[in-house]
Amino acid sequence: MQSKEVRLASRPVGMPKTSDFEIATVDLREPGEGEIQVRNVSMSVDPYMRGRMVDRKSYVPPFAIGEVLTGGCIGRVVKSNAKGFNEGDHVSSMYGWREGYTESAEGIEKLGELTAPASAYLGVLGMPGMTAYAGLLEVGALKDGETVFVSGAAGAVGSIVGQIAKLRGCHVLGSAGNAEKVSWLQDELGFDYAFNYNEGNILQHLREGAPKGLDVYFDNVGGEHLQAAITHMRQFGRIPLCGAISAYNDTEAAPGPNNLSIAIGLGLTLRGFIVSHFNHLGQQFRDEMGAWVSSGQIKYQETVYEGVEKAPDAFIGLFTGANTGKMIVNF
Amino acid sequence: MQSKEVRLASRPVGMPKTSDFEIATVDLREPGEGEIQVRNVSMSVDPYMRGRMVDRKSYVPPFAIGEVLTGGCIGRVVKSNAKGFNEGDHVSSMYGWREGYTESAEGIEKLGELTAPASAYLGVLGMPGMTAYAGLLEVGALKDGETVFVSGAAGAVGSIVGQIAKLRGCHVLGSAGNAEKVSWLQDELGFDYAFNYNEGNILQHLREGAPKGLDVYFDNVGGEHLQAAITHMRQFGRIPLCGAISAYNDTEAAPGPNNLSIAIGLGLTLRGFIVSHFNHLGQQFRDEMGAWVSSGQIKYQETVYEGVEKAPDAFIGLFTGANTGKMIVNF
Repeated sequence: MQSKEVRLASRPVGMPKTSDFEIATVDLREPGEGEIQVRNVSMSVDPYMRGRMVDRKSYVPPFAIGEVLTGGCIGRVVKSNAKGFNEGDHVSSMYGWREGYTESAEGIEKLGELTAPASAYLGVLGMPGMTAYAGLLEVGALKDGETVFVSGAAGAVGSIVGQIAKLRGCHVLGSAGNAEKVSWLQDELGFDYAFNYNEGNILQHLREGAPKGLDVYFDNVGGEHLQAAITHMRQFGRIPLCGAISAYNDTEAAPGPNNLSIAIGLGLTLRGFIVSHFNHLGQQFRDEMGAWVSSGQIKYQETVYEGVEKAPDAFIGLFTGANTGKMIVNF
Repeated sequence: MQSKEVRLASRPVGMPKTSDFEIATVDLREPGEGEIQVRNVSMSVDPYMRGRMVDRKSYVPPFAIGEVLTGGCIGRVVKSNAKGFNEGDHVSSMYGWREGYTESAEGIEKLGELTAPASAYLGVLGMPGMTAYAGLLEVGALKDGETVFVSGAAGAVGSIVGQIAKLRGCHVLGSAGNAEKVSWLQDELGFDYAFNYNEGNILQHLREGAPKGLDVYFDNVGGEHLQAAITHMRQFGRIPLCGAISAYNDTEAAPGPNNLSIAIGLGLTLRGFIVSHFNHLGQQFRDEMGAWVSSGQIKYQETVYEGVEKAPDAFIGLFTGANTGKMIVNF
């Protein structure tokens, strides 16, 4: 079996370009003892991958130039030489950005019977869903009925954050980058107040949507959003720091919020996290989110690109707002 | 009885000047039913008072122009018309910046038998000591043996933070504004590494004093200190935000730390607090700190000005680094 794969051709400076990537075709070896051969059906592109394209110390090591990229993907076993894995099984792995692979079955997760389309396991039932779940409930220590603001609310994480908060009886605000996304948040997902952050002043929007202030601000964006939210927090508010997509393509560090001292008097908590800090909640998440999705209480949307050659475009689209919900590449 | 008092003559712009204050003399009335007349013996000046001199929303309301200032003080009852208070009793109140007062006994705390000089109840055994105690142990969630950095380490709060951390078996770093203070921290208080933040690069100092990084950074200063500390934190580190004295006299908001996104991958917590959030720990603090001070395990130093007329100078001195340990005005 042959596999087309996407390699990092050069480290992006600022906004990534398609020329920072290259497509190659490789022959997959036959599976040795303990290995499986997998044909991917769906792969994920996520904002955090931008950090790995830079050569610096981070919580995940950088990608190497000329090597195939990695990331979450769902595939089906084509050939198995590993106990417990059979042809046709759906598996979840980090061997994304390629059509297929032959690798040790160790560290590859067997999904069992799917209760949703394969791609959902890269989104609402996968890493972004878990990020929303752990970030809002654990890091944000959400209480029923509070007022919650999430930025990047039409994204893979933000759209789930808002819906979980609604299920917990909260008053929910969200920001997104265009009118269509704003409508989706309000009309389909039940956000109480959604706004286009390109129109008007963020703080003004927050004052309108939450006159009494915010208890939780789930930060996917950083920058102006974070500063405005800090100004509008209530006493003992919590700010889970999940991402700072506004700055991922900056070539110089942008100044941070100039109003952090507000946190002192109000007793605010800003707490960063990544999903792997909460691996111990994985089963609880899968059970609870699985039920919410099956019952339709949590909805999700995908923006789908077709074919591994389109993966760079899909990735770049994350930073131009091309996606509503989870950005997916299907094969 | 007459009392000299200090009033706010004008709202300081930038660094406060003595002309922002005025001294007046008033006659104290005889105590009515439920009132006591008190002669103050010691008053406190604290950095947080700077915020109250500005006319803006904050966690404490602003001082009014032309009115006597307030703040922590210790006095002795001269005349009592209130049950439970007798002539000679030591009392703690917020009727500072004046030689004496006649007020309702309600809200005035009777200290009982003093086990330390009166002024200690404004410092190590009072609000700054409690701030250090609650901020390090509760907000900072200190664990034995961790690595702790405190800025403003020669101040009323910082010097106690460092000593509590030492009692908990921690490796302790501190910054201060001159060589004399640095010596005091290392030679008298047992800090493992202390440095003059005016010399060299703060981050470089942190790397030298704590090659493996910081578990807790107790922030009294903000600005460059906060940014350098964030860069040097270890996974799951905690940053109690206690003060930002570097910015208290700024006329425009200074940019915040440009590296907050580090908090995401490392799972850092930045949490603001003020001492009144922890009033429920007051008795535990007084018992534990009282024992530490009596046994000499916690040392304290004071910088003392004499006479209420000197209170403005003492206050201004907080921002020029004139104090080692607690800044006190004795009468």
